[in-house]
Amino acid sequence: MTDSFDQITSASNPLIKQLRGLERKKNRNETGLFLAEGARLIEQALAQGWEIETLVISNSGADRDYVRALCKQATSTGARVVQVPDRLAGSIARKDNPQAVIAAIRQRDLALTDLDQNDPGLWIGLYECRDPGNLGTILRTADCAGAAGVILIEQCCDPYSVEAVRASMGSLFDVRLARTDFASFNAWRREAGLAMVAASVNGNTQHDGVDFVQPSLILMGNEQAGLPPAVEAACDTLCLIPMRGGADSLNLAQATAIMLYEGWRQRGFA
Amino acid sequence: MTDSFDQITSASNPLIKQLRGLERKKNRNETGLFLAEGARLIEQALAQGWEIETLVISNSGADRDYVRALCKQATSTGARVVQVPDRLAGSIARKDNPQAVIAAIRQRDLALTDLDQNDPGLWIGLYECRDPGNLGTILRTADCAGAAGVILIEQCCDPYSVEAVRASMGSLFDVRLARTDFASFNAWRREAGLAMVAASVNGNTQHDGVDFVQPSLILMGNEQAGLPPAVEAACDTLCLIPMRGGADSLNLAQATAIMLYEGWRQRGFA
Repeated sequence: MTDSFDQITSASNPLIKQLRGLERKKNRNETGLFLAEGARLIEQALAQGWEIETLVISNSGADRDYVRALCKQATSTGARVVQVPDRLAGSIARKDNPQAVIAAIRQRDLALTDLDQNDPGLWIGLYECRDPGNLGTILRTADCAGAAGVILIEQCCDPYSVEAVRASMGSLFDVRLARTDFASFNAWRREAGLAMVAASVNGNTQHDGVDFVQPSLILMGNEQAGLPPAVEAACDTLCLIPMRGGADSLNLAQATAIMLYEGWRQRGFA
Repeated sequence: MTDSFDQITSASNPLIKQLRGLERKKNRNETGLFLAEGARLIEQALAQGWEIETLVISNSGADRDYVRALCKQATSTGARVVQVPDRLAGSIARKDNPQAVIAAIRQRDLALTDLDQNDPGLWIGLYECRDPGNLGTILRTADCAGAAGVILIEQCCDPYSVEAVRASMGSLFDVRLARTDFASFNAWRREAGLAMVAASVNGNTQHDGVDFVQPSLILMGNEQAGLPPAVEAACDTLCLIPMRGGADSLNLAQATAIMLYEGWRQRGFA
């Protein structure tokens, strides 16, 4: 015996149109919602107390046990469950073989003041990170390394974009995240007593020569431009990740991983 | 005064169709060609002696100095230069704002026997790496870290795909690369006297506890499945990159960067 849910079959249904529209940042901002695809991600969102507004299940997935279980859990937290033909699920996820479940989830505030300044982990600041794939990957790595949190500074890409959510592999739901301007950020980290260590081509210390055992924040710059001079001037340390002559530069997410794991290594991976 | 090149304006021109077709692996295999976009990448290819078969320049880019210089250099090495309307350049690159220059470049053999077994750098083996974005990113990081080379083992994605070339940011042209089966690979690395160190969830040593100063090869498994038991059994060391409880796993390119930079760190970044 199975529960029955609202069935929607028309692409012009307002809910379907709203969900499809969440691909665009403007619509995400207006509704305060974003999309996550796949049972694993949605379970992670529920486990971390994120509010699921709508759960879309595809006809071909509707009878699977894990989908039924997820529907039950989501409805118990107030989500509306709707069942749609696979082609409609595909049109929301914008791919031919969509996951059996797609959720519209309520965004969180990302206020700096919600972060715990006493968290002993390493912090990551991303200054004008523009590539959502990089951002998602950095969230995943921050999660793996048990970072204290990630702070998006000035004009960063949207962590709630489909691409960032996908690349984060669910870590978006786990990692503490905030968004702010540089002045507020810098005041916050000073108050928290965090040494601000930036990776920079202008660095004069190798990254493994930095003392990351002290309370620290790793600051990473924009993919193309790095950090502006005024921001570099506000840092306690500018360090250099070694590169051999010929190579141009590391990808931002790769550089962040190298910094973070060097910092965590110095702390004995504790 | 400007040189004049063959002008092509029709999308049904056989050359345009061939170039557009290089998006597909089948066509790349049949022609032995692949695409690279943008002056920086193409300059890098020329500098490393890659053979440029065709150089496509867009009408709007044709009068720029750096494009003229690139055309001159490419024709001197035997390339055919054709000039096309921007919309045709876009149709080859499959994007709305294509680069001013796109090249069809001849693939190289990627034979294991062409690699220098005496190169003192760290080697990277990728076993069934399936994501071209990961592969390209790993090539870029290998280039930055001065790795000896990258060996693709068994069924990997195509390093000549548009996505891999893009993600490599030109490092595809710099990094020594080979492609082979596991048995040949394992015989080769034994002959070269390389310790084979794999990152694995079955590892019992932390990655920073491995001695990477000895001649070493870092082996990384498939994005989903990791390494099969028989391959792990052939390794000298299985090591673990630390992760905190909650997180699932690191992205393959991130994990490779962490291994490679730890190895290079132990070698004093020399």
